[in-house]
Amino acid sequence: MMSLDLSCPLPISDYPQVVLAHGGGGSLTAQLIDKMFGPAFSNPLLDARHDGAVFESHGGRLAFTTDSHVVTPLFFPGGDIGSLSVNGTVNDLAMCGARPLHLSAGFILEEGFPMEALWRIVQSMRRAAEVAQVQIVTGDTKVVDRGKGDGVFITTSGVGVIEHGLTIAPSEVRPGDVVILSGDIGRHGVAILTARESLAFETTVESDCASLAAPTLGLLEAGVEVHCLRDLTRGGLATAAVEIAETSGLRIDLEETAIPVLDGVRGACEILGLDPLYMANEGRLVAFVRAEDAARAIEVLRSHPVGRQSSVIGSVAEGDRGLVTLRTGLGTSRIVTMLSGEQLPRIC
Amino acid sequence: MMSLDLSCPLPISDYPQVVLAHGGGGSLTAQLIDKMFGPAFSNPLLDARHDGAVFESHGGRLAFTTDSHVVTPLFFPGGDIGSLSVNGTVNDLAMCGARPLHLSAGFILEEGFPMEALWRIVQSMRRAAEVAQVQIVTGDTKVVDRGKGDGVFITTSGVGVIEHGLTIAPSEVRPGDVVILSGDIGRHGVAILTARESLAFETTVESDCASLAAPTLGLLEAGVEVHCLRDLTRGGLATAAVEIAETSGLRIDLEETAIPVLDGVRGACEILGLDPLYMANEGRLVAFVRAEDAARAIEVLRSHPVGRQSSVIGSVAEGDRGLVTLRTGLGTSRIVTMLSGEQLPRIC
Repeated sequence: MMSLDLSCPLPISDYPQVVLAHGGGGSLTAQLIDKMFGPAFSNPLLDARHDGAVFESHGGRLAFTTDSHVVTPLFFPGGDIGSLSVNGTVNDLAMCGARPLHLSAGFILEEGFPMEALWRIVQSMRRAAEVAQVQIVTGDTKVVDRGKGDGVFITTSGVGVIEHGLTIAPSEVRPGDVVILSGDIGRHGVAILTARESLAFETTVESDCASLAAPTLGLLEAGVEVHCLRDLTRGGLATAAVEIAETSGLRIDLEETAIPVLDGVRGACEILGLDPLYMANEGRLVAFVRAEDAARAIEVLRSHPVGRQSSVIGSVAEGDRGLVTLRTGLGTSRIVTMLSGEQLPRIC
Repeated sequence: MMSLDLSCPLPISDYPQVVLAHGGGGSLTAQLIDKMFGPAFSNPLLDARHDGAVFESHGGRLAFTTDSHVVTPLFFPGGDIGSLSVNGTVNDLAMCGARPLHLSAGFILEEGFPMEALWRIVQSMRRAAEVAQVQIVTGDTKVVDRGKGDGVFITTSGVGVIEHGLTIAPSEVRPGDVVILSGDIGRHGVAILTARESLAFETTVESDCASLAAPTLGLLEAGVEVHCLRDLTRGGLATAAVEIAETSGLRIDLEETAIPVLDGVRGACEILGLDPLYMANEGRLVAFVRAEDAARAIEVLRSHPVGRQSSVIGSVAEGDRGLVTLRTGLGTSRIVTMLSGEQLPRIC
C-alpha cells in the first residue's frame, strides 16, 4: 500500500505546475489551501481559516499572522512594498480583533538591488510601524543571485494581543447583521495597475494602503459587538463577501449604490474592463455587527481618517448558504461569485 | 536641512548595490543590520540582537522569531527546503530557551514550479513539524512570474513559550562558563555544496538538519543554569563564537581536538579549501553553562539522538574583549575571526 504522502492531492492533470493564479487570492489559491496546505498541516487553529491564528497563552489570547509581499512595482502612488508589508500584517492582526504588538520582517533581496532603494523601503516600514504603533522586533535577510528574485520580497509576520472577550470570525456572523464598509474600494489595485503599465489617466489614483488597527480597536473599545472583520485585499470586496458567506453558511445582500468608488477608479476600471468589486484594497475593511450597533459602529469608524466614508452596504440573511447578491443601481439583483484566477498578479 | 531619512547610512561608495554576501551571515550581513535595519527599527527587543525576540504577554514570556529560506538546491542529502524551514525557526525559538508552539509559513512560488515537488516539500514540513511538536497555524502563498523567483522560497516565523525564569542571551555568559557543542560540525554546508556542484566524494555527507527543541528543553527541565544557546547556522561555529564573545565582552578559548568533524566533511573541506569551523550547520548548537553544570548538561544532551556526541569544547575567560582563540592539535593557538563575506551563498 502506498503511503498517503506520495500522491499529490491537487488535480494535477489540470495544474501540473504552479501558475500565477495560485497566488492570486481567488479560487486557485483556495484550492491550494483546501487540497494541499490544509490537509498537510491540519490543526484547529489553521482549520479556522481566519486572517490569522488566535491562540491562548498564559491565560490570555494572542493573534499570529503572516504575509509575503511580492508587489510590483516596488514603489507606487500612495505607498511601496515597505508600507504595504507593515500595514498588510498589521491589518491581518486587526481583523482578528487584536492589538498589533510585534512584527518580524524577512527580506529576500536580489543581488544588484540598489542600496538607496532598500533604504527608502526600510524608512517606509519604520514610518508605517510608528503610525500603527507596532515594533519590528526580529528579522532575517537573505540574498539570491541576480535573476533569481525580483528586487525585494518582504515577508512580515505579526503577534497581537486580544484584549476583549469576543470571538471575531466568519462563524460568528448572524442573520440580521449589517455589513459596514470603511471607505471607497478599488484604489490599491488601480494604483498598482497604472503604475505598472505606465498608464496615464486624468487623475492619479493613490493606493489606500493604511493601518486599520486604530478604527478596529476603536470599535472594540466602544463596546460594539463585532462578529466578523475582514480587510479587502486580493480578490476585493466580492471575494471577501463570498468567503464569509460560505463559511458562515448565510446569505449576504449588498447594495451597489452604497459602495463608494472614486471617479478615477471607476474610470480606470471601465477603460480596462475590470470590476471595482474585485479590485484589491490595502486599507479597507468590512465589519459585520448587530443591526442595533450599526450607528455606533459607523460613528466610531468615521472618527478615524481612514474610515471617514464608512457606511452600511448590506445585510445578512438566513438561507441560500454561501450566496452573495448585489442589488444594482437599476434595481436588479445579481449573484456575486468569488474571483476565479486573478485580475492582477503580484498586487501585494 | 535634509531629513535623516534621505541619506543611506551604509558605506554605499563600497556597496551601492546588494551583493550576495549581504545575505551570507558574515560581516556584510552584520553591517546591514548595524547600519540600516538596527537604526531604522530600533527598539529594546530588536536591539538585543538575539536569535529571536523575547517579550512579555499576559504575565508570561514568549519568544518570536523569523527566517527566510532560499536554499539551493531545494532537495539535498539529509533534507530539503521544507524540513529546513521548519527546523530553522524551531531552533531559533529553542535558542531563546522557548518551547516552540506555533509556526507560520509564507510561500513565494515561481510560476512553473512542479506541483509534485511542492507537495514533497509540504510533506517534509509536516513531518518536521510533527517531530518538533509544533503546529503550522497560519500562512500565505504568493506566486511570482517565471524568472523572477527560484522555485520556492519559504519564510517561517515562530512563537514559543518560555517556561522558566532564566535569561538566555550572550550578555549572560560569565567567566568560567564552559562551551558545550552538541555534535560534529560542517555537515549541512558540505551536503549543500556537494549537491549543488554534483561533486562526488567517497561518502555522501548528509545535512544535520534537525530540531534542537527536545535537547534544549531537556537542559532546562533538568535545572541546568543555561546562560546562552546558539545554533550554528550561517557562518558556522567560528562566527557564533565571535558574536557571543563580542556581545558578552569576554574571551572564548576553544580546543580544536574536542570539536568532532566527520571524515567526509574534513575530506571535502580539504579538497575545496574550506574550513569546517565556518561551515553551516542546521542541527548543532553551543550551550554556555556553569562549569559545575557541565557533566549534567552533557548527560542530558547525549540522551537525545541529535546530541549524542555532545562534549565540552572550550571555556570563557575575562579580558581580551571579543577574542576567540582556537588551540590546535599541534598545541599552537590561533585567533578565530568572524566569517567575512560568505563561503557559500544560499546555504539556508
